[in-house]
Amino acid sequence: MKLLITGGAGFVGARLARTLLQRGTLDGRAITRIVLADQAAAPADLLADARVETRVGPLLAHCEALRDEAVDGVFHLASAVSGECEADFDLGLRSNLDSTRALLDALRHRVNGGATPAKLVFSSSVAVFGPDDAVPMPPIVTDTTLPAPQTSYGIQKLICEHLVADYTRKGYIDGRSARLMTVTVRPGRPNGAASSFFSGIIREPLAGVESVCPVSPEVSHPVSSPQRTVEGLIAVFEASRAAYGGRLALNLPALNITVAQMLAALEEVAGPAVRERVRFERDERIAGIVANWPTGARADRAAALGLKPEANFADIIRQYIADCATTPEALKGLG
Amino acid sequence: MKLLITGGAGFVGARLARTLLQRGTLDGRAITRIVLADQAAAPADLLADARVETRVGPLLAHCEALRDEAVDGVFHLASAVSGECEADFDLGLRSNLDSTRALLDALRHRVNGGATPAKLVFSSSVAVFGPDDAVPMPPIVTDTTLPAPQTSYGIQKLICEHLVADYTRKGYIDGRSARLMTVTVRPGRPNGAASSFFSGIIREPLAGVESVCPVSPEVSHPVSSPQRTVEGLIAVFEASRAAYGGRLALNLPALNITVAQMLAALEEVAGPAVRERVRFERDERIAGIVANWPTGARADRAAALGLKPEANFADIIRQYIADCATTPEALKGLG
Repeated sequence: MKLLITGGAGFVGARLARTLLQRGTLDGRAITRIVLADQAAAPADLLADARVETRVGPLLAHCEALRDEAVDGVFHLASAVSGECEADFDLGLRSNLDSTRALLDALRHRVNGGATPAKLVFSSSVAVFGPDDAVPMPPIVTDTTLPAPQTSYGIQKLICEHLVADYTRKGYIDGRSARLMTVTVRPGRPNGAASSFFSGIIREPLAGVESVCPVSPEVSHPVSSPQRTVEGLIAVFEASRAAYGGRLALNLPALNITVAQMLAALEEVAGPAVRERVRFERDERIAGIVANWPTGARADRAAALGLKPEANFADIIRQYIADCATTPEALKGLG
Repeated sequence: MKLLITGGAGFVGARLARTLLQRGTLDGRAITRIVLADQAAAPADLLADARVETRVGPLLAHCEALRDEAVDGVFHLASAVSGECEADFDLGLRSNLDSTRALLDALRHRVNGGATPAKLVFSSSVAVFGPDDAVPMPPIVTDTTLPAPQTSYGIQKLICEHLVADYTRKGYIDGRSARLMTVTVRPGRPNGAASSFFSGIIREPLAGVESVCPVSPEVSHPVSSPQRTVEGLIAVFEASRAAYGGRLALNLPALNITVAQMLAALEEVAGPAVRERVRFERDERIAGIVANWPTGARADRAAALGLKPEANFADIIRQYIADCATTPEALKGLG
């Protein structure tokens, strides 16, 4: 089978590609080709695999060609992140909304020509949740919590969830939307996401660098390891429609944890000297954004698919340390 | 002040325009101009008012010019109806989604140029609600019920609600979304909406014509009179942001009523001979669509704005009969 991973050179996308290549199969079929579409070039280890093909450039530019290409499955991860979307409103609409619609229309075009609908997993985000004056947000958000996005990024993710639902209802795709929790520990440099510090306060100290935590230690947040996230995306892809249940998005599993607990785990894994490289310096802008995020999430539908969060944050840190030893992009974080 | 009503030649739009012209003011300001944008020409009585200007053609074609036009307030009612959107997927996306975005972008363009954000009321719909395998729909939907649209029309309305919310958050508009209940009694001919019979079973018998009800008499549904709907749109426009509450859409008031109760009211108002012109002949397609609709709605936020549904359906029928005597388009239903 031929798969397309948009955002396939990114952190989650590349890990997903590696995991799929290692498995060799998806949905019980041999994976013969993985197309990685991304603005950036794919990591060298992926390019070295004969099954991998890359397409570099904006997703929007690739969609026209996709109208005439047989693709069996899509993991649609490409996205401008929250900070970028706040800074550049048009960029967010183009990268997240127009690109998704062009992708869905390319898949629809093939179905209108007689093809079997492609399976598609859309990576949505816990950022669809937030408080609204008329609708207080529960501290723990569930699959059935009313979304009230507080950012353009969250709005665009929610809109795309509903496009995926409608293209699925019409039979143009077999689509599913999975809401990613904050994935940590991310390698590399801080990105434009307000959640970037959730990785920074672990990654930087481990690399011998000081890190500033812009929120108080009591802040609680739903996180997930990269590997559990990737496993979640694959399980959602492989689920039958009945097991997925309906057309609305589901939450991926979350470890609900405070910053203080994250740092205690860091000390447990790497010692007090490493933990002491984190200092607290409140950033009102970031603290204000984070105050509107849920303190935790529950993922009942994902649990019914057999998906679980990491048991504890120390395991997430150990996963990151192991990654640094084996994957090239993780090492950048230790520079 | 200068107002734009998209869909301004339609049934609700024209009634809204008439009501506004009669009031003469909105938000405490004199109405100096009402622009009616619509695919169809506006009714003659509106054209005769010196304050009225019409623009005929697809909304999308008007939006470019709107970028350079000062408009103080917008009632955005233009929409392809549910049946059309199901039959022609691209039409729905273009008429409901692309047009709304182009309208919002035109308003944003002016704000970026220094203008005060225009107030905008978006007419969403009770069609955003529906059952999903993972989320059973409550029989009575409220302002905080999780939307799960069952049609492309409902999906597009929901998406536009969230665009309006985000453009508002960014300060590009002062936007509010109000979910219209099924407006009845509509004059004229049946339209492409699956809900068309909710008007037909009253309108046709009153005009001496037989009418077929495609669902069983027990079917319950949230309806509203045209006048209450128009009053709701105006109240939502005039509400302060604090009174509106948050950025999510609110439900307009509904009279929750069964088909049997509607027909009993018809008999009460017009006599048994008129009521007997309705016969029941189940249409599986329509009955299937209607089975996915809520049986009623509650409108707590609208109630807090002082809005109420009609007290009973007989009053709605009397309103229709009075309309037939005074407004030219209503008379078409009696042809």
